[in-house]
Amino acid sequence: MDARPGFHQSLSILQKELQDMGESVKDLILKSVDSLAKSDENTARQVIKNDDHIDDYLTKIDELCLRLIALQQPMASDLRIIGTALKIATDLERIADHAVDIAKITIRLAGEELVKPLEVIPEMADIAIEMLHESLVSYTERDVHRAATLAEKDDRVDKLYSSVMHELMGMMGSDFNRNRQLTHLLFVAHFLERVADHTTNIGEGVIYMVTGKRKDLNV
Amino acid sequence: MDARPGFHQSLSILQKELQDMGESVKDLILKSVDSLAKSDENTARQVIKNDDHIDDYLTKIDELCLRLIALQQPMASDLRIIGTALKIATDLERIADHAVDIAKITIRLAGEELVKPLEVIPEMADIAIEMLHESLVSYTERDVHRAATLAEKDDRVDKLYSSVMHELMGMMGSDFNRNRQLTHLLFVAHFLERVADHTTNIGEGVIYMVTGKRKDLNV
Repeated sequence: MDARPGFHQSLSILQKELQDMGESVKDLILKSVDSLAKSDENTARQVIKNDDHIDDYLTKIDELCLRLIALQQPMASDLRIIGTALKIATDLERIADHAVDIAKITIRLAGEELVKPLEVIPEMADIAIEMLHESLVSYTERDVHRAATLAEKDDRVDKLYSSVMHELMGMMGSDFNRNRQLTHLLFVAHFLERVADHTTNIGEGVIYMVTGKRKDLNV
Repeated sequence: MDARPGFHQSLSILQKELQDMGESVKDLILKSVDSLAKSDENTARQVIKNDDHIDDYLTKIDELCLRLIALQQPMASDLRIIGTALKIATDLERIADHAVDIAKITIRLAGEELVKPLEVIPEMADIAIEMLHESLVSYTERDVHRAATLAEKDDRVDKLYSSVMHELMGMMGSDFNRNRQLTHLLFVAHFLERVADHTTNIGEGVIYMVTGKRKDLNV
């Protein structure tokens, strides 16, 4: 039996906080992509506002982790769990930052008709959000296999990113406003590609947490 | 007198590691910008290769921090120092990632003549590198005032970023390769703007470490 009765309870609280943070971040990235697709400035502003809650989660989780380590003198495997939670929280916060990046672009493009309906970008967004979901489930269930499958999905996102870059650059011309819009869309694709990267970081964290071994999913 | 003789020594080792990491990252971002300006593919490849060392630093610092907390039961102010080191190491690693992003663009553009000599981008790079230097000194010297001055420099970088975005978008036309090059340069400007942001994060970390208060420098 563990001699530290409060420790596992605190660890459960930490994991619950991280799951809640993950769900909030998923909601944020979903809303940001949706705001862009629907040119919905209100939702975009909501995303920017709600990012504050994500920062609060990060502060709370950081403090929880550091206190847990300081007070309970965890063993190596527990230390890995806590260290991983710290890392995952940072990745989640970066994903939320990218949701804000996308929401800001929604606001900048508000009122403009899109040069072309979005196709590849929503596909990238769907996969990236699915990856975020998978990475969170892999964390909750400590499912190393599920975490490892993120690498394949990341490849798909990378390929879509290349193709949309190529397409958008080909659509540029002498019209400044058109170039401006296409450039903003290029950045949206870039942010989604980074979101996918962060979910593979989370997957790597899960693999390390469970196995103690480092594996690079993002190659 | 402190009852933990090994603690302050360990803390010094941690701070030395972080300073070394910071110097290595500064070197990386300097080289990446230089490789772009000189279209020097070899230096760019070196940057990409050397990023591995930065990842090693991060792993080492993370483990050092967690072990320090676990074994020594630090007081609140020490816990802040260690928590800040963890954060700063993450920001430094992100800056190194952006050096790699820029180096990759050097490689993609290698052999192409630039549409226009780089002007604003090197200026952005100079300020961003100066900010990195200042943030590292503010950490070493625990200089809150110096950390706070990063906010002004960040404003300058943001303004240069807007102006270069505007300029590059105005230069796009019907030539795909030209658009491709201009788009890559847009991304370089974006990465430099992010580097500057990370240095303000470091500055915020220093302020928190010294005063225990959170201050947003990136507004």
